[in-house]
Formats: sequence, structure tokens, C-alpha cells
Amino acid sequence: MTRWIGFIHNGEPGFGRLDGERIEVCEGDVFGENRPTGQVLPLAEVSVGLPCRPSKMIALWNNFGALMEKQGLARPEAPLFLIKPANTFRPSGAVVAVPEASGRALYEGELGIVIGKAARDLTEAEAAGHVFGFTCVNDVTSAAILKADASFTQWTRAKGLDGFGPFGPVIATGLDPETLTVRTLVNGRERQSFPISDMLIPVPRLVAQLSQGLTLEPGDVIACGTSVGSGPIPKGATVEVVIEGIGTLSNRFD
Amino acid sequence: MTRWIGFIHNGEPGFGRLDGERIEVCEGDVFGENRPTGQVLPLAEVSVGLPCRPSKMIALWNNFGALMEKQGLARPEAPLFLIKPANTFRPSGAVVAVPEASGRALYEGELGIVIGKAARDLTEAEAAGHVFGFTCVNDVTSAAILKADASFTQWTRAKGLDGFGPFGPVIATGLDPETLTVRTLVNGRERQSFPISDMLIPVPRLVAQLSQGLTLEPGDVIACGTSVGSGPIPKGATVEVVIEGIGTLSNRFD
Repeated sequence: MTRWIGFIHNGEPGFGRLDGERIEVCEGDVFGENRPTGQVLPLAEVSVGLPCRPSKMIALWNNFGALMEKQGLARPEAPLFLIKPANTFRPSGAVVAVPEASGRALYEGELGIVIGKAARDLTEAEAAGHVFGFTCVNDVTSAAILKADASFTQWTRAKGLDGFGPFGPVIATGLDPETLTVRTLVNGRERQSFPISDMLIPVPRLVAQLSQGLTLEPGDVIACGTSVGSGPIPKGATVEVVIEGIGTLSNRFD
Repeated sequence: MTRWIGFIHNGEPGFGRLDGERIEVCEGDVFGENRPTGQVLPLAEVSVGLPCRPSKMIALWNNFGALMEKQGLARPEAPLFLIKPANTFRPSGAVVAVPEASGRALYEGELGIVIGKAARDLTEAEAAGHVFGFTCVNDVTSAAILKADASFTQWTRAKGLDGFGPFGPVIATGLDPETLTVRTLVNGRERQSFPISDMLIPVPRLVAQLSQGLTLEPGDVIACGTSVGSGPIPKGATVEVVIEGIGTLSNRFD
């Protein structure tokens, strides 16, 4: 397993392999040719950056059995999604200033699939070969904006405000997603804990279905949807999305 | 007025100012510092490229009076929108292979606002200073996908397939949007012709409202929504979106 991290060191962006508290700095393309530079940096001496720059973050709705049942929804035949734009992206450790426009923001802990190779019209069997690894996502949402208009549910704006799509801290490769558990902690108290095995559309089928007619690019992130236990973020709270094998995405929301 | 064009010449991307059938080639950043290189290219000798690379394309719904009335909708208080991802972008002249997944595609001729300076929490008075210029957009949609799920209108996927967001051919500066008319031609026959003055949320208010809590970046495109007359694209048809002062966005759909 490799854990790829992006960082800022002395004002310069870089990336490398995180091994415990040390970063083996690399050069090249995380999704293509790359090699170690020989430099090693202590994690404590860098600012954590984004592990990749998605051309799009696809965010799923209604993709967990427990939440579907709780909300009385039907099982979807195809992935139902919106796109979170680049202005939402923040690395672990970033403080998110919740915009005035949003009212109260909600946390939603999620698994993020990171695409490694351009993918279109894939079969389920092909899909695994296009997945690079996994990350943690907090799919932050403004409940007030979501339902403000009776004629049009504002998924995109409610989930598209500045800082509403933190992800990281790393991309971890070589994991079996079916064994993972997503936990969300607010000020250290666990608020969500749900197994990825409850996903209505498992990872290979999800990637294959999304790729029909729609090219997934290296670095694109698929936020797999949340399950039960989402809730409001108190002002000033720290929200952590924890997935064993990946790590902890931690952000304070002011 | 300046008409900025992107192009490919001898396999290399470039940009410049289009003057009739000649391109005055420039170097630098179209939204920042740039200068003429002295080279002049005949338009006929290049492939037209995208005039910019949006970090997001915001696409409006229900933003014209005539269509609102026809569909019996209420006047929205805020802009209602989705995001078209980068895999939808195509320059004028590109042939779009309509994906199998989409069924029949619909054309929607639209005005595109191109942002020139990073913008957040703008007032209406400030908004004009952050608009760089205007372009033509074809906000292509799969009607079959849009309504396939009863619980979730699939705006993003229906409008997010490969090639479903052509724009161009140029970004024109110095236009008064209130004077513009959008016309859409299918195989040379006019199917849409509507005035921008019928927009429910005019350009300065639209940019100001969208920027609340959500940063608009240089090169971002706001597709202002369509009006009456949208319809299906016959297989193999050429669709032109024509806005006087900007030009003609022309794409064949196979």
C-alpha cells in the first residue's frame, strides 16, 4: 500500500509517499511517471496540500442501504449525482470559513474513489484497473439552500460553496473498499460509522456506470455518498472523516 | 471590441485576437498580462480551439421570461444551476459523437458569460468589472436521462456527457448583453431566436448572486439558460448558436 500526499514546503508545492511521519518526496506525475528525488521531509515540517487536482468531483446521492431505508427512498438503477466544483476543494488541516450565504452547514463523511487512468464506457471487470486509490471526503452541504426553491432542488449550490468539498489527507492505494468503514467525528465525538459494504452500487459497478458516455480523468474524485448520522456543524467545530488505511481528514469550520 | 480565440497550429495550442479572417497571435495569459508576438495567422490555417479552460461551467435553469411562462414556472429568487464538467467542453468545429447512453440529445442555445477576475461576494455594481466577455454555448441535454429517475432529476448527468458543452468560437469583449439576441440553427434552419433582455436575472445581478459564498475564477463560464424553441438534434445534424458580435458556434452531432 502506498499513501500519496500533496504538500507545501517553503512555499513550493510538492508530492510524495507518506510513510508514518516521513514524506519521501517524488517528482513527475502521481498518476503517471514519477520517481523519488531522494529528499525526505518530516510531515511536521510541511503544510498538507491536496493529494490531486480533480477536473471534477462527482458526488453521489442515495447510495447507502441504511440511509435509503431511513429516508424511505427507492433503490436507484443508476448512480444519481451532482458535481462539486474546484472552489469547494480544501486539504486536510485547512480552516473552512463557512460562507454567510449557507446558513448552517452539514457534515457528510464519505469515501472518495480517485481515478488513475482515463476511463470511458468501462465494463465492471475493467473498472478496477482505472481506480488509483481512495481518499476521505467531507461532502459539506447547506440544508437551507438545498430546499430554498420549491421547483428546483439546489444540489449544486448547496454543496458547491467555497470550502464545501475538503478531501484527503492522502490517496491510499491497494485497499479493498468492501472492508472499509467511514467514521465522522465532530469535536472528537463519533457521529457517523458505516461500512462501505452497504453501498448500493459497489465501487467497480459505480465506476463502470459513471463512465458510460462520460470520461473520468486521472485525479477525478467520486464521493460515494454518505449514510446515516449526517448532522449540523457547530460554529468553530472540527470535523474529522476517518477511514482506517487512508487516515484522517480534519477541518475546522468557522 | 476584441474577439479572443484559441487555436491549434502545427499541433501547438495558442491564442490571439481574431480580426476578420486573421489572427493576431499573442503570448501570456488571456485574462492577465499578454502581448502580441508579431505573428499573424489566417483563420483558415488553424483549428479553432477553446477560447479558455473553465474551472467550472455554471448552467442556469429557468432564466428566461418566455420559457418560464410557457412552462408555468415561478420566477426564481436566486439563480438555479448545475455544473457542466470539463469533459463536456468542445470548441466550435468539433464533431460531437453523441454517446449511446444519451438517447436523443436536445440543443439549447445560450449566452455564456466569461469571468475575467476572481469574484466573490460581489455587489451588482462590482460585477461588471469581473466580466471579461461573452461567448456562445450549446447546453446539450439528454431528455431521456433527465427524467429517468422519479426521485432525483438528473440535471448533471443529462447535461454532463462527453461533448455536451461546446462553447466559442471566441470570447468577445465590450458588448452590452442587453442588446444581444441568441439564435439557434439546425441544419441551417432557425429554431430559436430570443433576446437576452428577457433574462429573469440580468448579467450583473446574476454574477453578483452566483458569487455569494462561491468564488468565480478567471475563465469560468456562466451559461445563462435557454428560452423557448429547444428541440431534438437529428443524427448527423449541424447545430449553430449565433450571437451577433460574438460569432457562430458550429458543431455536428453524430
